[in-house]
Amino acid sequence: MSSSVLESRESSSSEPRLNRRQAAKVRTRGKVMEAARGLFAERGYEAATIRDIARGAGMSTGAVFANFQDKAELFEAVLAEDIARIADAASGALTSGRDTAQRLLNGLSAAYHETYDQLPLVQAIAARSWFQPASAEQRTREALKPLTDAVEGVIREGVASGELQQDVDVKLLASLIWEAFVGNYRRAAYDQWSEAQLSEHLGLQIKAILAGALAR
Amino acid sequence: MSSSVLESRESSSSEPRLNRRQAAKVRTRGKVMEAARGLFAERGYEAATIRDIARGAGMSTGAVFANFQDKAELFEAVLAEDIARIADAASGALTSGRDTAQRLLNGLSAAYHETYDQLPLVQAIAARSWFQPASAEQRTREALKPLTDAVEGVIREGVASGELQQDVDVKLLASLIWEAFVGNYRRAAYDQWSEAQLSEHLGLQIKAILAGALAR
Repeated sequence: MSSSVLESRESSSSEPRLNRRQAAKVRTRGKVMEAARGLFAERGYEAATIRDIARGAGMSTGAVFANFQDKAELFEAVLAEDIARIADAASGALTSGRDTAQRLLNGLSAAYHETYDQLPLVQAIAARSWFQPASAEQRTREALKPLTDAVEGVIREGVASGELQQDVDVKLLASLIWEAFVGNYRRAAYDQWSEAQLSEHLGLQIKAILAGALAR
Repeated sequence: MSSSVLESRESSSSEPRLNRRQAAKVRTRGKVMEAARGLFAERGYEAATIRDIARGAGMSTGAVFANFQDKAELFEAVLAEDIARIADAASGALTSGRDTAQRLLNGLSAAYHETYDQLPLVQAIAARSWFQPASAEQRTREALKPLTDAVEGVIREGVASGELQQDVDVKLLASLIWEAFVGNYRRAAYDQWSEAQLSEHLGLQIKAILAGALAR
């Protein structure tokens, strides 16, 4: 009986206690990720140190390491959070538009809109994607998959509707559009292209890439 | 008269002396660049320190700084040397082939061939191109210009010959092909694509990009 009282006391009090702990942990992770996001954007992946990220978050390096195994894991957590947000914004817009080109442009323009005020972070992510361990690259691709899959899906619908030729290589076209979409960020970063210029140029690129795939 | 003798002595002896000095300087620069190339490829731009580059070249950091103002200048010197070599190899191949697509593929395949055993360096260059000062980006573009101009030139000839439509956007098509060409290196780096796979895939990409530009 004392054991059952103990159990009931434990179960009634442990849940809120755990939740407070969990909430604190979530807050700590959030603070670390915000500081990391800022520092990655400012300095790039290599030059952002865990020590400076910890300082930016107002905590010890130990507290950072209690939440993230290493800088790579922290970077991926930031990336995953951003991608989820961008994919959300893009996937809605990807379904609207009078034809395949317009739907792709609407979706990817929404992605530009969602990221335009975070250009340095996008640059840091793109730079890192060229020089990271193969395992990290695999996780980056997984993180990006909702977006790249959505682009493929729109092209596939264009084939299904008869707008595009039946034998087009969907993955090839999707990856060309994706590379163009990503490559344009360089023009924003170095040539001060506005969000509107990015979208306008991407529109021309998408049109050129799909031109040979349209059903005759 | 003594002054004229002195002058003549100086002019007769100073030239070989200067040449020896110049030759030594060229050798030193070459050694530094080789060590830097290896270290950039191994660690990427950020993590390669001047101290380790100097150690790799068997000299003091002071000797490195006597030849290069900073790491950025050294990196650009390595890049410029490589690009010149690649542009040489590609420009010959870009003129051979039965049509525009084939000529582009021959030229850019030659570029793959010239760089395939230096993948990590290509990765370091691509990574750096996403996160560098605007002035460095301008110099990178200048260095790449012989290659990107050559790609544009081949497309322009396709327009002139009537193979491609008269109103195609040459720069747009060239930059799409360039982005595809560069993007494929990621598949070599992370998916172990062979040189042949890179060329085969680029061939499909070029065909898709030009498909909508062919004269009907």
